[in-house]
Amino acid sequence: MKDIITINECSALRFIPENQYAGWQKKAIEALKLLESGQGKGSDFLGWIGLPSGTPQELIDQIKNICNDWQKDVELVVVIGIGGSYLGAKAVIEALSHSFSFWLSAAGPQIVFAGQNISEDYLAELDDLMKTRSIACIVISKSGTTTEPAIAFRLIKQHILGRYGKEETKRRIVAITDKSRGALRHMADRQEYRSFVIPDNVGGRFSVLTPVGLLPIALAGIDIEDLIAGALNMEHVTAEKKADNPAVKYAALRNALYSKGKKIELLVNFHPKLHYVTEWWKQLFGESEGKEHKGIFPAGVDFTTDLHSMGQYIQDGERHLFETVISVASANRSLTIPEDLEDADGLNYLAGKHIDECNKMAELGTCLAHVDGGVPNLRIEIPSLNAYNLGALLYFFQKACGISGYILGVNPFDQEGVEAYKKYMFALLNRPGFGTRGEPDANHR
Amino acid sequence: MKDIITINECSALRFIPENQYAGWQKKAIEALKLLESGQGKGSDFLGWIGLPSGTPQELIDQIKNICNDWQKDVELVVVIGIGGSYLGAKAVIEALSHSFSFWLSAAGPQIVFAGQNISEDYLAELDDLMKTRSIACIVISKSGTTTEPAIAFRLIKQHILGRYGKEETKRRIVAITDKSRGALRHMADRQEYRSFVIPDNVGGRFSVLTPVGLLPIALAGIDIEDLIAGALNMEHVTAEKKADNPAVKYAALRNALYSKGKKIELLVNFHPKLHYVTEWWKQLFGESEGKEHKGIFPAGVDFTTDLHSMGQYIQDGERHLFETVISVASANRSLTIPEDLEDADGLNYLAGKHIDECNKMAELGTCLAHVDGGVPNLRIEIPSLNAYNLGALLYFFQKACGISGYILGVNPFDQEGVEAYKKYMFALLNRPGFGTRGEPDANHR
Repeated sequence: MKDIITINECSALRFIPENQYAGWQKKAIEALKLLESGQGKGSDFLGWIGLPSGTPQELIDQIKNICNDWQKDVELVVVIGIGGSYLGAKAVIEALSHSFSFWLSAAGPQIVFAGQNISEDYLAELDDLMKTRSIACIVISKSGTTTEPAIAFRLIKQHILGRYGKEETKRRIVAITDKSRGALRHMADRQEYRSFVIPDNVGGRFSVLTPVGLLPIALAGIDIEDLIAGALNMEHVTAEKKADNPAVKYAALRNALYSKGKKIELLVNFHPKLHYVTEWWKQLFGESEGKEHKGIFPAGVDFTTDLHSMGQYIQDGERHLFETVISVASANRSLTIPEDLEDADGLNYLAGKHIDECNKMAELGTCLAHVDGGVPNLRIEIPSLNAYNLGALLYFFQKACGISGYILGVNPFDQEGVEAYKKYMFALLNRPGFGTRGEPDANHR
Repeated sequence: MKDIITINECSALRFIPENQYAGWQKKAIEALKLLESGQGKGSDFLGWIGLPSGTPQELIDQIKNICNDWQKDVELVVVIGIGGSYLGAKAVIEALSHSFSFWLSAAGPQIVFAGQNISEDYLAELDDLMKTRSIACIVISKSGTTTEPAIAFRLIKQHILGRYGKEETKRRIVAITDKSRGALRHMADRQEYRSFVIPDNVGGRFSVLTPVGLLPIALAGIDIEDLIAGALNMEHVTAEKKADNPAVKYAALRNALYSKGKKIELLVNFHPKLHYVTEWWKQLFGESEGKEHKGIFPAGVDFTTDLHSMGQYIQDGERHLFETVISVASANRSLTIPEDLEDADGLNYLAGKHIDECNKMAELGTCLAHVDGGVPNLRIEIPSLNAYNLGALLYFFQKACGISGYILGVNPFDQEGVEAYKKYMFALLNRPGFGTRGEPDANHR
């Protein structure tokens, strides 16, 4: 059986002295052992490792029940969440939906997101939209008090309540939150919303395979059992304590390159639908590793689009970056370049070729050119864009991130730095319990 | 009269020794003089400087004629272009359209883009969409042979021709291309498409105020005369040879920070609609400065969304970055946070406040927190998001980019590095005239 995920490191290894790479491989295997032992930093948050094998059928059935229920009469589902409660679902839905699904969707509700910003214009315009559609809402928050989703939920809850009344509101709001604690859990219980649990031991950026990701993804018409099955494959593959485990390989390579002064990693795709997989990856690695004044800066480019914007910099700018390409072997659709009698554009040499073949040659040509220019290039190869392979890819990145963070020596499962702006914001907004410099009072929080 | 664009440098200057900053200001003024003298590197491509004051009324009228013509019966306009032939229009249209315009648009055609990638899935799915709508097409390319737009145009041209016939096709395709040379110019003349000229002395990333940007922007219902008027204001303001010229100030600050090891610039917004202004800016600065193994790496974040992904890294990761915030003083819409009797989410301390007020405190709190964390923060302040202010902002960035590139010592108006991947790609695709290593034959190109 061909592996779902293959790492091609040829064009990266030439930038790492041969006698040093073995050391990085060894460190990566040690880091994997530490991760799986549950003895490393942040080990209260390792619940994500066993999610694929541990998802009960009952959870899948509950999710399907909501899908069937809303299928009947809901046209628009507003999914409220930020960070890890937003990016996983957004990434999978964008990757697996029709590029113009907002105009051409099949049966089933459309999905829009809210609570991922504090834009007055965005929320007012969402209100314009909600008025024209039969709506329902999923609200995702462990605490229920994170400012962005809490503001959005207050508005949308009032909209639903005012429009549909108390009883029907129970059917149109689903909460995904803590098992027993927090404002949203209490609200859900008291108002009798249907609800799902975010496990205690799974952090936001590792939560795509919990209801946080699974419910919105299922509502978008994507097969979540396939998604989980792909992740399960990777749960097995990435558990192997050896150097050709793809998660070990990727973690070793990126740390080796970082040690050589490559301080920016560009996650590269050649498929516009993967844009939000990159955004999800940026959170995963940036929030896991960007601490103690270290960590690779995660950035993304969508090629060939961005070859015509960031391409010049990558080719010839500062030599502090490397590229990691998500390479998709096959397109899902079939379209060839037509013959043209006049050939004014000079493209007849491509006539009859699949467009994806040109894309592949752009991908290969870019790798050759950038390596010439001094940019290490490593490739993560998957067979095609479907739920199974995407589940595998996301799990692979999570596992590699845990390993990589341990190699770096940080706790990859906390995010203390995210609180800093909130303290100042609360003080500026005169939130009770916050002093003028944003220090919480002793008896709050 | 209040300036449209104000630079607030307080939280950046503390990272620059006082005795050094005057030197950077002086260099910036010298660079501006060089730019305006037309004696600097790449001075064949300075046509953009005088575009706002030099736009003939006739051009505006021709654009309006097309808008009026297509208004009657065109539902979907496909705009074909890549790089500078894509990002300017995309940035302005996204910034000034309703967040859900694809569902709630007023009269007038919808705009979609093509030719900005080589994705087989994207083009096949665009074909699905085109079949359901009355369509027209704008094709933008100086040469007409750039691979991505040429492939898209070949497909879309055949679609239009097959569906509407030869005569009607003349009405439904508009070409924006070179005055006299190139494949697209010849095609346009022979097929009798209506056409517009891309001036010889304006490069792609500086072309948003030529028909390249103006026609698609006008078709989206945006007032291009306001856009040009805002840019015209900045044409005057940024011509002043003094240190408080905002373009001089921004160019001096970013080069001073770069000299202190701040190698990544994060363009920050707090308004999701500005996402593509950041993408446009990344091309502008990355392609202008990323050469000779130098230049600041341009990256972008959309806050507060990305405070919950990249926020941790910015707060605590490697200290090699600084932030430039586009700060918008007023929201366009009005929405306040409602009171809630139960106050389960604890948000009643915000009840009655405008959402934008919270956003502003998030912005200010973020600045305080990141500066605490060692991240210089400079701010570009504009009054609101409208065509006039956006025209000013884009022109400001272009002028600052020219100045900044000259301070850095590069030619900010070429982009040799963009060709590198194409050579390999052409060789791999067996394009006539390209050898196996991608070297063009002597008698081609």
